[in-house]
Order: sequence, then structure tokens, then C-alpha cells
Amino acid sequence: MTHDIAVIPGDGIGKEVTPAAVEVLEALEIDFEFHEAEAGDAVQAETGEALPEETYDLAASADATLFGAAGDTAADVILPLREAVDSFVNVRPATAYPGVDAVRPETDLVFLRENTEGVYAGHEDRLSDDVSTLTRVVTESASRRLAEFACDFVADRDADGFTVVHKANVMRETDGRFRDAIADVADEHGVETDEVLMDAFATRVCLDPDQFDVVVCPNLAGDVLSDLAAGLVGGLGLLPSANIGPERALFEPVHGTAPDIAGEGVANPAATILSAAMLVEYLGYDEAGMAIREAVETTLEEGPRTPDLGGDASTEDVTAAIVDRL
Amino acid sequence: MTHDIAVIPGDGIGKEVTPAAVEVLEALEIDFEFHEAEAGDAVQAETGEALPEETYDLAASADATLFGAAGDTAADVILPLREAVDSFVNVRPATAYPGVDAVRPETDLVFLRENTEGVYAGHEDRLSDDVSTLTRVVTESASRRLAEFACDFVADRDADGFTVVHKANVMRETDGRFRDAIADVADEHGVETDEVLMDAFATRVCLDPDQFDVVVCPNLAGDVLSDLAAGLVGGLGLLPSANIGPERALFEPVHGTAPDIAGEGVANPAATILSAAMLVEYLGYDEAGMAIREAVETTLEEGPRTPDLGGDASTEDVTAAIVDRL
Ligand SMILES: CC(C)[C@H](C(=O)O)[C@@H](O)C(=O)O
Ligand SMILES: CC(C)[C@H](C(=O)O)[C@@H](O)C(=O)O
Repeated sequence: MTHDIAVIPGDGIGKEVTPAAVEVLEALEIDFEFHEAEAGDAVQAETGEALPEETYDLAASADATLFGAAGDTAADVILPLREAVDSFVNVRPATAYPGVDAVRPETDLVFLRENTEGVYAGHEDRLSDDVSTLTRVVTESASRRLAEFACDFVADRDADGFTVVHKANVMRETDGRFRDAIADVADEHGVETDEVLMDAFATRVCLDPDQFDVVVCPNLAGDVLSDLAAGLVGGLGLLPSANIGPERALFEPVHGTAPDIAGEGVANPAATILSAAMLVEYLGYDEAGMAIREAVETTLEEGPRTPDLGGDASTEDVTAAIVDRL
Repeated sequence: MTHDIAVIPGDGIGKEVTPAAVEVLEALEIDFEFHEAEAGDAVQAETGEALPEETYDLAASADATLFGAAGDTAADVILPLREAVDSFVNVRPATAYPGVDAVRPETDLVFLRENTEGVYAGHEDRLSDDVSTLTRVVTESASRRLAEFACDFVADRDADGFTVVHKANVMRETDGRFRDAIADVADEHGVETDEVLMDAFATRVCLDPDQFDVVVCPNLAGDVLSDLAAGLVGGLGLLPSANIGPERALFEPVHGTAPDIAGEGVANPAATILSAAMLVEYLGYDEAGMAIREAVETTLEEGPRTPDLGGDASTEDVTAAIVDRL
């Protein structure tokens, strides 16, 4: 069976790390057909559109999409692309790796971020010269769908349960609904949950990340708290993510375009290659996913390493080493 | 001149640390008149109201208020109390102290948190069985007032400028207004600013807190990011805060009621005593404020210490040591 994969490198180091991940995918014994498309600042400068219709359509029809990064147009690219794959959850593992300097080396978390609503629902108004508003939306259905996913996820991971993060002491109706809907679904599945206020979570995860495992959050909370966890594991450079929909999905490194090093061929491809591992697992190839993960981990530990990790290897060297270790 | 100070210990360790801070204030040569009032879970259980009208009125008329902590009713107590003093900014220093185990010992930040609006404006609706909404409010006037305060604040602190945190790539109208209004005011005052997205801030402050100094945020961002900084300095136990209004102000430790140790007489009073230092500085007694701060710092370094910092001293012992060192 052939899997159609949309490949959208985007801008900056996206153009370097995405081909690296494709190289790794090509080294597997899986029948992929890759379809490349453009998005981001460069295509916007050229055509006026950061996300050309062909690119949207490709993501909306491919089995899976691999996305690199976009510059100033990031929100105009990634938010519609998440919609294109009808993604209701953003899966963001934050794992500290041996050999990588981390603020909290014991960090090993996975965030399951609601991916369709909250403040991202995007209803904003300028009511007067003084007043602007944004309508934050939380639905029972999206909260329950996220919770169903979380229950399956903890079962697969053999986790004890999950933690729900919210700010229902202030956002009583919206985050109250989020919290209660998720607790209901977890109860139905016999999955244990606990709940932590968003602010308290920020303190506690710094002091002792080990107390958390799978963390379920509203959209913006997931954005911020997973980036906080990225700080704890030593930066965005190693974090993959998956935007999962009912029929397709999009995989992307959490990092951006890194304009300071773009074009130099020294970008760390690990986050995108780990995103490719999530991609093959999503398609059902668990062993291939594990093989990629192990090859990346060995390479992080034993080298070669890119300059961000204190080495002097190129993206190409690191990718070759990972392919060798598959 | 006599200063009327409302004292609201609240619940849990609030009842222990608030009297400790009053003891320190009494040791100064300043003419205070203290007026105690109730708020929190206990008075709610008794009277049905977490924030009795007398308490609200007292805070709304006193020159300054010292608040301890409230339990489950925290939001019902602290949000109206912030309104009672018409507080438009919440000042939250996050400083790592020598002798205290910190994730990032170089942390020395002050958050200036918008204190009246954002998601705290509290307009929520249940539109249907499926949909709940919250209207997030950002006004030009509140953003400008915060910015005016920030400009004065950096001048007093001799800081180079301040950092504006926002999420205007997603909340374009509301956080866009916040960012632009603040940049305008800073320009008018010739104060330098830079801006960082809320999620990027979360990563960067973990990796290198030294790159930030004064941080200006919307309400919820300030809540979460200051608690994140609390994690970096070793916990909420040492963080004071000030809710500043045009004519009065309210001072409170950032920590909560600590039910696990409440009633044992071993709560760390440092955060509340440091809040008292902010109180006397607010009233214009800069030297007294500095004296309290130095006495607290010496005590943190040399002891005695409460159990949370690895010591075995009581709240009373620590308070006495601080008073001795004034
Ligand atoms: C670029 C931006 C819109 C996006 C988000 O807020 O989701 C990014 O921060 C992310 O987390 O992927
Ligand atoms: C208790 C709660 C309403 C409050 C807030 O969200 O502001 C608290 O977290 C704080 O930061 O003082």
C-alpha cells in the first residue's frame, strides 16, 4: 500500500530539516509517495499567499503531511494546515535526552493539546476606539473528543492516567466545561485523572516534572506549557509534534525557522526526524517508528552533533548517521 | 501621619504568615493603625459569604491592605479585593535568593501583570448544550495605564526598558491592541521595549532568565508566567506581590493556604514579609522597605529557616530573627 505524504518544508531551516526527515523516511521499507508543496514567507512574497490553495488541498488529501517551519507567516500557514487535516489534538512529547544539557533532565511528558478552539477560535472584534474583544470557545464535543483520544493514548502508553490542566477557578463556564467533560469521559473509560490549575502547573513542572506524565490542556495552555517543557529539556530543537485528525495528520517540529542559522546547513534535524517517527507510527508502523527514535537517541548521545548541541557536524552528517543506525 | 492598614489573614497559613508580617511592620518607626477583617473558606462556611461586605469596604477605604491567602474560595476573595483597591497592575518580583535551592539561581525578574481585564473580565455564556464562550476584553485605556506604570517603574529601577509578552500572532486584535498601545506609550516616554510571544517566553525564560528583567503581560499570561518564574526560583514560598491602584493597594504573598502544614506554626513568612516591604515602599518609606528586604535576605542565607527551606525553625523564630535584624 502506497502512502501519500505531503511535504511542506516552508522557510528557513524548514528547507534543511524537512529533506533530512524525508531521507530517513526513504531509508525505511515502506512505500511512500512524497508530494512537495510550498508555504510560508517566501511564497507569500512571491504570490501574495502564505498558504497556496494547492498546498492546503494537498495536506487535506494526503495520508499524512510533514511540515517544516514558517517565518512571520507561521500563524497563517500552520493554523489552516491544522484545519486541513481536521486535527483535533496536538500531541507534543517533551523528553530530555541523555547527552543533551537540560534544565530538568528527568523531564518526560506528553502534552495533548486541544487543537481547534479556545482563543484560537479566532472571533475578535474592535467594539470601539477603546475596546477589543475575543470570544473564547469551548465545546462539549471537542472536549469529549480530546478526552476519548487521551484515554486511548494512556492505554497505549501504559500510563496510569492523565492530568487535566485548566483555569476553571477563573474561566468557570468554559474551562469548567472542559474539565468536567474530560472527567466524565475518563470516568466512562475507567481512566484515572487528576487536575491542576494552569498557573500551579507552571510552578510544579519546574520544581518536579516527574510528577506528571500525560497532560491534557486547552489550546493556548497547551501551546505555552509545552513550550515551557521545551525549556526544561533544553530548548525547542528536539521537540517533535503531531496534529492528529480522524483521517489524516500533520507532523512538525516545535521549533521555528531559526533565521540566524538558516542556509548554513547546520540545523539540527532531530525534531523533524522525530516528527517523522510519529508519522510512521501514526500510519501503523510501530517498529519503524521505534527504530527511528532509537537511531536519533543514539546519535544524540554518541554524535555526530550539530553546533546547537556543542558539535560541529552538518545537518547532512547527522542525518547520514541516523540513517546508518536504522 | 497615620496609615490605615487593612489586615486580612484569610485561611490556612494566611493566619500564621499575616500576623508575622504585621509584627515586622510594628517594629518599624511608622505610624500604622491595623484593622483586621475576615475572608475565605472559614467565613464562607460560617456566614455564606467568602468576602463579607465589611472586609470589602475596609480594603476599599484603607491606605493599604495586607492579605494572606484563601482556600477554595480564593478567586471569590482575591478578584473582588483587587477591584476594591481599583488595582490596575499586579507587580510580581521573582528573585532567587542565595541559600535557597533554585532551578535557575540567576533569576531576577519583575512581572507587571495587567490586573483588570483579559479573560478575567469574566463574561461567560453557555450558548447551548454544546457551546460555552468567554469574552476576553482588552482596552486601549487599561493597556496604556499599565504602560505608563511600566515606564515609571523601569525609571525607578534604573532598568534598560521592558519586555512586552503577548500572543498577538493568534489574538491579533486583542493582544495586537495590547502590544501596540504599550509600544506607543513607551515611545512617548523614550523607554525601550522588546516583545516576545508568550510561548517563546516560556521556553526562553527557562533556558536563560538573565535575558529578561521587567516583563509586562496581559492578565492570564502574567498569572502563568510569574508562576513559572516562581518555579525557577524554587517555589512560591518566597514570592511577594503588590496590587497597585491609583489611591490604594493590596499586598499578598503569591503562595496559597498550604493546607498540608497549616496550623503547625512552621509556615515560611518570607513572602508575606516581603509583601510588607512592598507595602511600606508603596507608602513612601523606601529605607524601611530596604531594611525589611535585607533582614529577610540575611535570614534566608544565615537562618533560622523553616522546614520548606530545610530548617527546623518555626514561623515565630524566623519572624523574630527578621525583626532583630531590622
Ligand atoms: C505559530 C503559532 C500560531 C503556533 C501556535 O500558537 O499554535 C505555534 O506557536 C505552535 O505552537 O505551533
Ligand atoms: C486565585 C486566582 C483567582 C488568582 C489569579 O488567577 O489571579 C491567583 O492564581 C493569583 O495569581 O493570585
